[in-house]
Amino acid sequence: MKKFRLESDSIGTLEVPADAYYGVQSLRGKNNFHITGYTLSGTFITALAYVKKATSIANYEAGLIEKDVAEAMVQAADEIIKGKFRDQFITDVIQGGAGTSMNMNMNEVIANRANEILGGELGKYDKCHPNDHVNFGQSTNDVVPTAGKLTVQMLIKDLLADLQYLYDTLQKKGDEFDHVIKMGRTHLQDAVPIRLGQEFKAFSQPVKRDLKRISSAVEELTYVNMGATAVGTGINADVEYVKNVVRILSEVTGFNFKQSPDLVDGTRNLDSFVWLSSALKTCAVNLSKTANDIRLMASGPKAGLAELGLPQQQPGSSIMPGKVNPVIPEVLNQVCFQIFGNDITITKAAEAGQLELNVFEPVLFFNLFQSIEILKNGIVTFIENCLKGITAQEANCKHWVDRSVGIITALNPHIGYKNAAEIAKESIKTGTPVAELVLAKGLLTKEELDIILNPFEMTKPGIPGKQLLKH
Amino acid sequence: MKKFRLESDSIGTLEVPADAYYGVQSLRGKNNFHITGYTLSGTFITALAYVKKATSIANYEAGLIEKDVAEAMVQAADEIIKGKFRDQFITDVIQGGAGTSMNMNMNEVIANRANEILGGELGKYDKCHPNDHVNFGQSTNDVVPTAGKLTVQMLIKDLLADLQYLYDTLQKKGDEFDHVIKMGRTHLQDAVPIRLGQEFKAFSQPVKRDLKRISSAVEELTYVNMGATAVGTGINADVEYVKNVVRILSEVTGFNFKQSPDLVDGTRNLDSFVWLSSALKTCAVNLSKTANDIRLMASGPKAGLAELGLPQQQPGSSIMPGKVNPVIPEVLNQVCFQIFGNDITITKAAEAGQLELNVFEPVLFFNLFQSIEILKNGIVTFIENCLKGITAQEANCKHWVDRSVGIITALNPHIGYKNAAEIAKESIKTGTPVAELVLAKGLLTKEELDIILNPFEMTKPGIPGKQLLKH
Amino acid sequence: MKKFRLESDSIGTLEVPADAYYGVQSLRGKNNFHITGYTLSGTFITALAYVKKATSIANYEAGLIEKDVAEAMVQAADEIIKGKFRDQFITDVIQGGAGTSMNMNMNEVIANRANEILGGELGKYDKCHPNDHVNFGQSTNDVVPTAGKLTVQMLIKDLLADLQYLYDTLQKKGDEFDHVIKMGRTHLQDAVPIRLGQEFKAFSQPVKRDLKRISSAVEELTYVNMGATAVGTGINADVEYVKNVVRILSEVTGFNFKQSPDLVDGTRNLDSFVWLSSALKTCAVNLSKTANDIRLMASGPKAGLAELGLPQQQPGSSIMPGKVNPVIPEVLNQVCFQIFGNDITITKAAEAGQLELNVFEPVLFFNLFQSIEILKNGIVTFIENCLKGITAQEANCKHWVDRSVGIITALNPHIGYKNAAEIAKESIKTGTPVAELVLAKGLLTKEELDIILNPFEMTKPGIPGKQLLKH
Amino acid sequence: MKKFRLESDSIGTLEVPADAYYGVQSLRGKNNFHITGYTLSGTFITALAYVKKATSIANYEAGLIEKDVAEAMVQAADEIIKGKFRDQFITDVIQGGAGTSMNMNMNEVIANRANEILGGELGKYDKCHPNDHVNFGQSTNDVVPTAGKLTVQMLIKDLLADLQYLYDTLQKKGDEFDHVIKMGRTHLQDAVPIRLGQEFKAFSQPVKRDLKRISSAVEELTYVNMGATAVGTGINADVEYVKNVVRILSEVTGFNFKQSPDLVDGTRNLDSFVWLSSALKTCAVNLSKTANDIRLMASGPKAGLAELGLPQQQPGSSIMPGKVNPVIPEVLNQVCFQIFGNDITITKAAEAGQLELNVFEPVLFFNLFQSIEILKNGIVTFIENCLKGITAQEANCKHWVDRSVGIITALNPHIGYKNAAEIAKESIKTGTPVAELVLAKGLLTKEELDIILNPFEMTKPGIPGKQLLKH
Repeated sequence: MKKFRLESDSIGTLEVPADAYYGVQSLRGKNNFHITGYTLSGTFITALAYVKKATSIANYEAGLIEKDVAEAMVQAADEIIKGKFRDQFITDVIQGGAGTSMNMNMNEVIANRANEILGGELGKYDKCHPNDHVNFGQSTNDVVPTAGKLTVQMLIKDLLADLQYLYDTLQKKGDEFDHVIKMGRTHLQDAVPIRLGQEFKAFSQPVKRDLKRISSAVEELTYVNMGATAVGTGINADVEYVKNVVRILSEVTGFNFKQSPDLVDGTRNLDSFVWLSSALKTCAVNLSKTANDIRLMASGPKAGLAELGLPQQQPGSSIMPGKVNPVIPEVLNQVCFQIFGNDITITKAAEAGQLELNVFEPVLFFNLFQSIEILKNGIVTFIENCLKGITAQEANCKHWVDRSVGIITALNPHIGYKNAAEIAKESIKTGTPVAELVLAKGLLTKEELDIILNPFEMTKPGIPGKQLLKH
Repeated sequence: MKKFRLESDSIGTLEVPADAYYGVQSLRGKNNFHITGYTLSGTFITALAYVKKATSIANYEAGLIEKDVAEAMVQAADEIIKGKFRDQFITDVIQGGAGTSMNMNMNEVIANRANEILGGELGKYDKCHPNDHVNFGQSTNDVVPTAGKLTVQMLIKDLLADLQYLYDTLQKKGDEFDHVIKMGRTHLQDAVPIRLGQEFKAFSQPVKRDLKRISSAVEELTYVNMGATAVGTGINADVEYVKNVVRILSEVTGFNFKQSPDLVDGTRNLDSFVWLSSALKTCAVNLSKTANDIRLMASGPKAGLAELGLPQQQPGSSIMPGKVNPVIPEVLNQVCFQIFGNDITITKAAEAGQLELNVFEPVLFFNLFQSIEILKNGIVTFIENCLKGITAQEANCKHWVDRSVGIITALNPHIGYKNAAEIAKESIKTGTPVAELVLAKGLLTKEELDIILNPFEMTKPGIPGKQLLKH
Repeated sequence: MKKFRLESDSIGTLEVPADAYYGVQSLRGKNNFHITGYTLSGTFITALAYVKKATSIANYEAGLIEKDVAEAMVQAADEIIKGKFRDQFITDVIQGGAGTSMNMNMNEVIANRANEILGGELGKYDKCHPNDHVNFGQSTNDVVPTAGKLTVQMLIKDLLADLQYLYDTLQKKGDEFDHVIKMGRTHLQDAVPIRLGQEFKAFSQPVKRDLKRISSAVEELTYVNMGATAVGTGINADVEYVKNVVRILSEVTGFNFKQSPDLVDGTRNLDSFVWLSSALKTCAVNLSKTANDIRLMASGPKAGLAELGLPQQQPGSSIMPGKVNPVIPEVLNQVCFQIFGNDITITKAAEAGQLELNVFEPVLFFNLFQSIEILKNGIVTFIENCLKGITAQEANCKHWVDRSVGIITALNPHIGYKNAAEIAKESIKTGTPVAELVLAKGLLTKEELDIILNPFEMTKPGIPGKQLLKH
Repeated sequence: MKKFRLESDSIGTLEVPADAYYGVQSLRGKNNFHITGYTLSGTFITALAYVKKATSIANYEAGLIEKDVAEAMVQAADEIIKGKFRDQFITDVIQGGAGTSMNMNMNEVIANRANEILGGELGKYDKCHPNDHVNFGQSTNDVVPTAGKLTVQMLIKDLLADLQYLYDTLQKKGDEFDHVIKMGRTHLQDAVPIRLGQEFKAFSQPVKRDLKRISSAVEELTYVNMGATAVGTGINADVEYVKNVVRILSEVTGFNFKQSPDLVDGTRNLDSFVWLSSALKTCAVNLSKTANDIRLMASGPKAGLAELGLPQQQPGSSIMPGKVNPVIPEVLNQVCFQIFGNDITITKAAEAGQLELNVFEPVLFFNLFQSIEILKNGIVTFIENCLKGITAQEANCKHWVDRSVGIITALNPHIGYKNAAEIAKESIKTGTPVAELVLAKGLLTKEELDIILNPFEMTKPGIPGKQLLKH
């Protein structure tokens, strides 16, 4: 039994495994690019198949492809969408050629499967041809960016839901901790009292902005350049097809895609991907800061701030018994660091486009899809394995407030900044409480001090003891 | 005559020049931070003075500061806004302390000038005190970020106008060049014909998106945290003052500021600055790509593509006579590279905030203000000294189209991809024109070819010669 | 038949698959960190096993572990080194906890396998315990960085060999093309003649520097902190063991490792990894530039510079017949872009370490190992699938030189820069050759011009026609 | 009296201030590039003047320039080196044209000054011409990179000295603090005891490596491409001049420059600058980490770790009396963030070079020189205003050790990891000291515990109480 079939293209002839649904061009792509060892992600393969489903329908409706061929192509695409043939996508995620190998891999798999459906043979392409049928009216240069945008839409839905969940959970913790008074710190130095609930709510606000930013950036990525073909001029794409293909893509995917108002622009410029990556990066700035703060407030258990207790997820050390580490915030930090780096790769790839096309989409997609995926995963593990179970170490929080001289700030309006500064200095040096020193100097009475130095009052806008001010 | 006066703060005593409007804390700031050698930008000084004007009014209206003192402080602030005392702002742009030195520098200059107005002496602070009057109800932690946001609003107006001008000019060039047919290139390889006008319009589209992105990012920066004081809780800021200060700031500046709905968030998180920097970076991606393309299309004059003529701005070489270089696009590229780097610094600074405050605002501001300024300057020089004067080298454009075999793409629907590929190969190898080879093989008639191979038709969506298709 | 066994640690009890060689802590690690979906690389697993082999021997030689237990551990490690049990390493490459999960995964697999060898049962750990035997005298904090450095040494050998091969191949192409005179271009504008061979040799020189830089950076990574245990103080590592373990590691691996002179430093600082990444990044700068230049010189085939012919690797387009693209340089560019981004992640991870430990090694390693691997792969595909087959399009090279006026530079010393500039301008404008114009103006004779305007002479230092200079 | 003179170049005629030493091309450069508002740094101007001094001598010695002209040019260069004419250098630091404007600015100033010396008139250039004399045998493309390398050499000497001083000071503090036992922390969680002196020595080690890295990178930058002229082929540079110019440059500057072995490479590739920037970036990674750690250990004064006391440099707050912040480490952090960003700009600029030249040197130089300068300044302020005055808060250090259960690690070899983990858990929960729990469980005697649980012993390699191990 023969194990290989011969297939040829304009470069020459290759042996393709006899039972492969991919063909000669996929194989060239695989052979040329041994780079990362990773092949295309499942979501991207699905997205590419959706694009081919839409183009098959659009070309059929425009009278450019026979019904039976179109139906076979749609069936093949649907099978791929459902998860079949995944092992037939053999090219590396990082590849030269602007994704021609990805596109041809899809064209060949659909052509071969359609041929099979139509009673033909693998590798023959007589009933359905990768270029003349599957790729009709298309170019890698409209198909691949469009599939990339569809992938983003599919991936981002979960991310947005998870961010919303993060916001809600932070708000809930904010409510839970609203009564816990603790020391606020600026420059890592004692400042003035604050409530732990205020801190958790302040963690939540950037998430709300991130949601808005990511949503708005993703909205840009609903503009696709189907119909552009090679350079955006639309050569070889039938007018009727061009008019309908984006609407059909929306219908088969359930996303609301629009056609780029300028298809030449839509084919060469990747700035909308950079914008989304920027939104992810900005979100990573916030989450890394949050993870840092939580790790710091949870430092201890005995020789740190110990204001927060984190759920114990795993033994923290192979040598130090009983040690438990903040592994979940730590992994969230690392996710953020990865996203920072990915953003640079994406920026560079987008900037490197030349003239009518940016050929560096493959590496851009690899990084962008990864950023979305790991951000989502990082957020989920952070919520479920850490955030929800965080407890306030109330006694410790109180301990720090009681020790600190930061409350002296409330005395400014009453005794002036300069007097207050001298007393603060003395209190820090000698350990004598602020109130005692103020009394000793006869600046305020005990009754006045009781009114002014109420830590809870200090956590709201207002001049503590304003009624006592002597104008 | 004595040349120095003695001033003291909680750290100790220093000699301050007798005629200085700044005071001891400004001087400490200057002495501690010899970093870049650059002092605060004029726009930022103006912004800071506006903030102090607004707080003086708000505190006066809340009954917390006497009328004459408030009026003197407002007068001092107005003088600074008008450009006086610029040499009194002596601290380095990169400074530790979250901008306390900047804020205290302003507090001291206003206090001294107000003192003077009120009949007092420099360095005495008896009639108007830097902390107890000028900084009343404020902290560096609400004043400095707010001044930063005001600075951005002041700087960005010009940038947005210049981007709009860039868009308009690119569109105009697009119209001017709409009739010029040239070779489209993907992968730097001959692709299919396109019109030069389409290319210039495609340069313009990202600018439109950039305008939208920057505007939307700047909108976030209208939320200020005045009233937050030290950590966002609003300690020592009177309730009445807190209610009014942002409205007053809007009135005195003409910008529509809103108070952060969560002042704790507003005090610690700098993500909105990152978002603006990301928008600038994304714009830089587009402009760098545009500059690259223009330099490439203008390559020559004799040994390059020579599709564009650029205005000659300066002799291009100290050794090669007659050489003229694309110095304006080159400087635009460099502006973009600077913005890429600045974005990293801004991202890192924002991520490094801890707990209640991000103390790294000074370096963030330095980079963000620079990015806005140089982007604006780069765009203006690009429009005026290059873009407006670009000419199409029409004969060269035509020359490349005539030589190329890219037009063969239009034959796909008529003779199939495989046949077309063989003919293309032969034509490239032998130099025989595509049409001749098709005729020789009897695939199409001369009449058919004349219809199909019309370059102008290829620059619009549609199947050239669709009416000839044999289904 | 039971499918799970129960295992417990200080956190609690989990069901572990009955036949698993990993244990409860590995499983916790897996469950906590669903991030990238990628597990540890084979090379890193091998490296970790080598470390455990060395520590087993060192502890045995110091009299701290029984012979039979030590032998069983060494056998288990050797089996892993040979490639067994790869599916037992189940934790995500990006993980919290500074690699404790990686280390414990290895400890558990070795302990279970050693137990088995010693006649025990999986999951019992009575004969060989993950912490008390396999991890004896160690901590994640010395084991994981050391395994990371060993991984680097193993990966980098191939990279250095491939870089050397790249250098040699570029030199060889330099020799091959040494006779081809072509136009040199600066600012993408015609400059003066150069030989194509000179260009290829100039591509090779940075590779030589890269080799030196990478080698020197890798040398730093031969310093390992074995013996440091938790924080570098060496607690619980026997003095005898500490003295010998690095020597033994060198013996079993064949690499020449040295012990960090300061183990506290060696445990907390990751700057040597940043330095290696910087060397890779610098190499990527060079290779990306080389790829860009080659793509530019190979632009065409008809509407570009067409000075180089690249081997045809695959059809270049799904729509444009006969198109062949520079897919191999393009993939090399993308490899470089990935390395740029990875360097940022590595830098950020290294900077984020706190106090006695940098817990962000996992993400650093993931990026560093990837950078090395893809750089190697990118170079190999570039050499084999592109560089070796590059041909000079000599006729085109000559064509550009003949058209250009850049040769006028050679006239400077003879007629002065100002005269030369005027002639250049006129020649570009009118198309009249430079020599003709000089003759017409009577500035030089035909004989003199023949001597001066010899393009080949212009490709070497010297004043063309110096003997004619009139002093 | 006329205030302007007319000067013309191949572009046209401009009005130049009558008393200006710069000329028409400088003025064009100034007008074309209003970007940053910063002009060339003094060090770079000096460096450029040194290059011109060397070329004047070399050309004179090769018999290509008359003695009196050469002497006048050398005198002019020397005057510039001594600081004269600084206001005559009018071009923006970020400029298009690969530095042609910088080079021509220098050529014009020297030519005019030399003319003046020789009895001529400003703007006439009849006795000494900017191109035909000052720039003889040169091109911007060898002059500017060489001046950049000389600038680096001049700037870096101080930086290296300051780094050495930092190393020495850190070592000295390490000695000073060698007796202070404190808690080591990993993951911000209590680990095992360490000595404060060990920590400061561990801060010093990376500085040693940074010194080595920077020195080695700077060594690469002693290779200059003088003699390369326009594209590295050396056209118009006399053979005798080429042989001597680099030696003469070394003589006049006192640096040991070597000629690039491949001048074509030396003219187009900027990787050696990237390498130096990478070394600065790696140093910044270390210093940012050190600044972070010091800020963390100095957190407090009452509600933080408070293990270190920092010298008080300035009042820390405009609102919180008595607050003192770690402003010096904070500014060091910001210096590092700036360097991270600059490295990206430098990397991008170097990668963007095309064919025979990298035209983006101006922005690269701006960032590289700034990185060196601010790193130096940041280090000096850190040493003088912070590091030298740091004190150990010994009582606090001891307090944390006494509270912590981390010392339990020493019990591992004696009672096993599992037992130890249970005791640790109980101790953290109940507050009962570890020793008490071990005694209560009868695992070890009081005498044994006294031997094993000696914190000082734990700060050295070895198994505490090894003599008690029961094998």
